[in-house]
Amino acid sequence: MAEHRFDPNFTDNVINAMGPKTTPRFRQLMTGLIRHVHDFARENEVTVEEWMAGVQLMNWAGQMSNDKRNEGQLVCDVIGLESLVDEITFKLAEEAEDAPTATAILGPFFRADTPYRQNGANIVKDIPDGEMAFMHGRVIDFDTKKPLVGATVEVWQAATNGLYEQQDPNQEEFNLRGKFKTDEEGRYYFYCLRPTPYPVPDDGPAGKLLKLMDRHPFRPAHIHIIATCDGYKPLTTQIFDRKDQYLTNDSVFAVKDSLIVDFVPRKDDPQAGLELNYDVKLVEQPT
Amino acid sequence: MAEHRFDPNFTDNVINAMGPKTTPRFRQLMTGLIRHVHDFARENEVTVEEWMAGVQLMNWAGQMSNDKRNEGQLVCDVIGLESLVDEITFKLAEEAEDAPTATAILGPFFRADTPYRQNGANIVKDIPDGEMAFMHGRVIDFDTKKPLVGATVEVWQAATNGLYEQQDPNQEEFNLRGKFKTDEEGRYYFYCLRPTPYPVPDDGPAGKLLKLMDRHPFRPAHIHIIATCDGYKPLTTQIFDRKDQYLTNDSVFAVKDSLIVDFVPRKDDPQAGLELNYDVKLVEQPT
Repeated sequence: MAEHRFDPNFTDNVINAMGPKTTPRFRQLMTGLIRHVHDFARENEVTVEEWMAGVQLMNWAGQMSNDKRNEGQLVCDVIGLESLVDEITFKLAEEAEDAPTATAILGPFFRADTPYRQNGANIVKDIPDGEMAFMHGRVIDFDTKKPLVGATVEVWQAATNGLYEQQDPNQEEFNLRGKFKTDEEGRYYFYCLRPTPYPVPDDGPAGKLLKLMDRHPFRPAHIHIIATCDGYKPLTTQIFDRKDQYLTNDSVFAVKDSLIVDFVPRKDDPQAGLELNYDVKLVEQPT
Repeated sequence: MAEHRFDPNFTDNVINAMGPKTTPRFRQLMTGLIRHVHDFARENEVTVEEWMAGVQLMNWAGQMSNDKRNEGQLVCDVIGLESLVDEITFKLAEEAEDAPTATAILGPFFRADTPYRQNGANIVKDIPDGEMAFMHGRVIDFDTKKPLVGATVEVWQAATNGLYEQQDPNQEEFNLRGKFKTDEEGRYYFYCLRPTPYPVPDDGPAGKLLKLMDRHPFRPAHIHIIATCDGYKPLTTQIFDRKDQYLTNDSVFAVKDSLIVDFVPRKDDPQAGLELNYDVKLVEQPT
């Protein structure tokens, strides 16, 4: 960082206070974090009042968080941090046309206790509006292209009012989410909604930050997917509707080109006027 | 930052998402924060798992915080951030021998509702051990050296068990804290404890960080002071006992040389065997 007029030894003193029993990785992370946070404070001459506003905002995020809502995560999301660590973790900065399915962020609305459903089930309950879609595809081995039998595809999506079931007392529990096992041909299939754009919750610190940054809170329409199969790397991703107006300015910066999909008209199905064919490509877990 | 193999436009995209109605100062702060946080993540290749551990830690800090405890602040304190923004705010990196009283951090145990007491009062209640001290001095104008009449000196200190009254159900409310008005000669005086070193609370995320960094949680013995007077800049500081073993390795990095004081023996006072003479020097508030 540039020259500054503050104690030149302060940051090194804080870093060097770490003892010999710190693990090397934790020492690396804390050293980097302390250096960047101190440089940020000095470069911008952050005042006690501004810092305290930040502390109060982060405490507020924690106080809003529970097993159904992770506001600290959402605060990170609106400054792009979850998408960035996602990119870093999976080292998929550049995606070829033919590549394992790209990753995307988990987001704050995943539920670990989502039940399995039969293939062909309808995950949409009590939703008066929205377009129905038949989503189907295979889970395949990225290298051999062989279908994977008994893989799990877990999906979740928001209702047309912009709310996930755990945010909305009027939705049935586990509405718009489910787990499916691939069949003997590696296929999964179910009925869902064509996803619709929605604003991330703006009643907390993340919404406050967005307002202060003069940004909209909308996410492009998407369906969350987690795919797992014994012997393969688990995949967390989202797929995005190509027709969505927020594709290029997602409030949490999660869109990747290879994750954009097309809903097409479906004929002769009284349950759905749209269809989405989507194959998930997993890579083997090194043993 | 150095070359990296991640999306080179990602950080600029996040920064450029800010709209025209952001205030210039907020834009500056968020630009700096986003850049440093992203650089930190890339330089150290922070994984989703590591990032999520950080989110959980910060949410935990918020959940522990209430009107008597500010754990988010304590997390900042153990990485030196409050001391750094304190230094920045008051631009007192170098302190001459004769200067206005230096500032130090507020810390998480201040209470806004502390009552006034008469000069000469004893702020120590129900404390079976510890050394009693008579603390006295004047509040003076730094430039003219004139005493300031009717200034307020607010103090708070931990008990010998290391706990402030709001942390300890066995202490009377407002034990070891009080506000005093300076008399016609600008004097304040009261009885208190010679302060003792204590560990910051280690039952939460700050304590977890300290353990992971292999650092001790102790603060050197100190008394917190806030001094205010109409027409003068309010002062927040702490004074430290020169004999304390933790003077050079305060767990929250708040010690400054000019804030180190000497407790000396006091004669012929049945209430106290020690004495501390300490003048507070305030500077005029520019109008």
